[in-house]
Amino acid sequence: MAIDYQSLAVKGVQALSPYQPGKPIEELARELGLNPADIVKLASNENPLGPSDKALAAVREALPELCLYPDGNGFDLKQALAARFGVGMDQITLGNGSNDVLEVIARCFADRDSEVVFSQYAFAVYPLVTQAIGAKGISVPAKAWGHDLDAMAAAVTDRTRLIFVANPNNPTGTVHEAEAIEAFLEKIPANVLVVLDEAYCEYLQGDQYPDGVKLLSRFPNLIVCRTFSKAWGLAALRVGYSICSAAIADILNRVRQPFNVDTLALAAATAVLGDDQYLERSREVNAAGLKQLEQAFDRLGLGYIPSAGNFIAVDVGGRAQDIYQSLLAQGVIVRPVAGYGMPNHLRVSVGLQADNDRFIDALEHALQPPGQGAADV
Amino acid sequence: MAIDYQSLAVKGVQALSPYQPGKPIEELARELGLNPADIVKLASNENPLGPSDKALAAVREALPELCLYPDGNGFDLKQALAARFGVGMDQITLGNGSNDVLEVIARCFADRDSEVVFSQYAFAVYPLVTQAIGAKGISVPAKAWGHDLDAMAAAVTDRTRLIFVANPNNPTGTVHEAEAIEAFLEKIPANVLVVLDEAYCEYLQGDQYPDGVKLLSRFPNLIVCRTFSKAWGLAALRVGYSICSAAIADILNRVRQPFNVDTLALAAATAVLGDDQYLERSREVNAAGLKQLEQAFDRLGLGYIPSAGNFIAVDVGGRAQDIYQSLLAQGVIVRPVAGYGMPNHLRVSVGLQADNDRFIDALEHALQPPGQGAADV
Repeated sequence: MAIDYQSLAVKGVQALSPYQPGKPIEELARELGLNPADIVKLASNENPLGPSDKALAAVREALPELCLYPDGNGFDLKQALAARFGVGMDQITLGNGSNDVLEVIARCFADRDSEVVFSQYAFAVYPLVTQAIGAKGISVPAKAWGHDLDAMAAAVTDRTRLIFVANPNNPTGTVHEAEAIEAFLEKIPANVLVVLDEAYCEYLQGDQYPDGVKLLSRFPNLIVCRTFSKAWGLAALRVGYSICSAAIADILNRVRQPFNVDTLALAAATAVLGDDQYLERSREVNAAGLKQLEQAFDRLGLGYIPSAGNFIAVDVGGRAQDIYQSLLAQGVIVRPVAGYGMPNHLRVSVGLQADNDRFIDALEHALQPPGQGAADV
Repeated sequence: MAIDYQSLAVKGVQALSPYQPGKPIEELARELGLNPADIVKLASNENPLGPSDKALAAVREALPELCLYPDGNGFDLKQALAARFGVGMDQITLGNGSNDVLEVIARCFADRDSEVVFSQYAFAVYPLVTQAIGAKGISVPAKAWGHDLDAMAAAVTDRTRLIFVANPNNPTGTVHEAEAIEAFLEKIPANVLVVLDEAYCEYLQGDQYPDGVKLLSRFPNLIVCRTFSKAWGLAALRVGYSICSAAIADILNRVRQPFNVDTLALAAATAVLGDDQYLERSREVNAAGLKQLEQAFDRLGLGYIPSAGNFIAVDVGGRAQDIYQSLLAQGVIVRPVAGYGMPNHLRVSVGLQADNDRFIDALEHALQPPGQGAADV
């Protein structure tokens, strides 16, 4: 008798749809017969600067070590993070990207009896990791595309184990100021863990925004997650981390895979932390690019969600899928967000000026009425 | 009221002791004030050859891509693996080391209602991933340090979802021939998945050993796991994979993290697959080193478990912990295996001839009676 192996999977997994990443350049090049160098990808919130020279040098220096397992404790990187943020090394958990840390947190503290709270339009990994462990995800309706923190606090029940808060949020770019985050944290029972995902926090400019690490002493149920994939420019290498109490970090470090961050990734991340000039340039290029995109959207009469990240969600109306396809045909990759319940938006990552120009031109072309634009590419 | 955050962890996690990796060279150097270059590490079954030139070149070529996310589908590596093994790309699941694949398999197909069968003295990751998901691990007593396959088949109940079989096994080095593995597979119900972990299969010499991939057409419940960390010399980069039916692979690919293998790792693994000379040299160096170690153990009157891997477990009697410490003090790192229930053994990875010599000398010194050897270092 033939077995349906999919039916043997645990319940949450059976219904799981995998994460849909931005289309890789190589894949589009294969499909359309294009030269990869002619393709502009503004689809994955990647740093357009190219890597830090310090990171590159560190990777080259570590190359003779390829046969050896990584330092599973990540000593050098934890030491550098601890010094930068004024925390103990025992408060840090390293992950294979912050995706890994988010997943490990969920697996440590929630199971199929639990509820996990997150916002509508929040990062797709929250519902995915929740479903994979069979927990019940509580998606709280957003307010003006952002987290409705009052409603999220009100959604906490006896079964709630975890709350994910993205600040700024991807894919909407919305952000809460410090006062709002602190007021929210004060409402959450101490036995419910709050994951404050600050993947994009390095792009924030201004004192009004919270720094999760500074809140840890007041809120022992807080776990702050960050990443080297965005402003630090190391998406290829998969390094994220969390900072929290040593007691919680001890649990997370039991469950993470013993060699979850590789040797070259550890070396690059440690080195780039000493390259504040790179971070400053990342911020400048991003601020200028966001302005460039907003001005273009204004000129084209397109609505958009003001963004605190390195991307922006633009409202192109009912033809978002057609426009996405037209952009692809023109060698420009952006990110459809219909899967987030945002069928009228496209998320565009901020590129260098020339890449943004290329996208804007392609968008203008795609926006022409059918017959004159998208349909004839 | 202060909360005990450890008590909030899910049940399996609360009791979890993390994996104990081999002591890193840098850590011993810090502790003893030694020069890292003077330390010999034979503790993690690493390839002593140093990396393949083809792998190094591929990593260097990929360096400009550090800001971009990896290809989440691993197209090039899957294509190369599919061609090498004559399977479909849709049968392959890539992992952040085979540790990742093993964990994903457990999370997909077992939960707290399940039993997971493995052997006494088998790879530590099997009980760890089992416990982390709250499943019941069934450790079947070994036979002559190896898997007792008949007893493992007999241990299957209605609740068994997974069986892990390591062939060759780490840390004992034991191996079963093809006939025994096939006879075992024939006894296992089709709705119980068998994970055949062939992390060390590249070291096997001789037609009598099974090739798991060739068994897939006969046993649709089989998942074969392999790694680039051993004979392929890429432990630093964390690349493992499984090959199984497309239906099972589809499930595994839903649960693995979308960017679980990084860009440099994908590039290096793809390149090294085209370096069969490297693999051949890995095998030759290993065979010669195993012989060297066995001869030394014979000369010293020490028992050992004949090994099919790139390591060997030597019986040093009741003083294993003292001898381990003495070796450390002499700048030689091996692996204690008391945590595996083997308090009289030390596991020694096969090194280059000079490293093996260094270990043998240090071992002779450590073996001297207390007062003349270990105690006075």
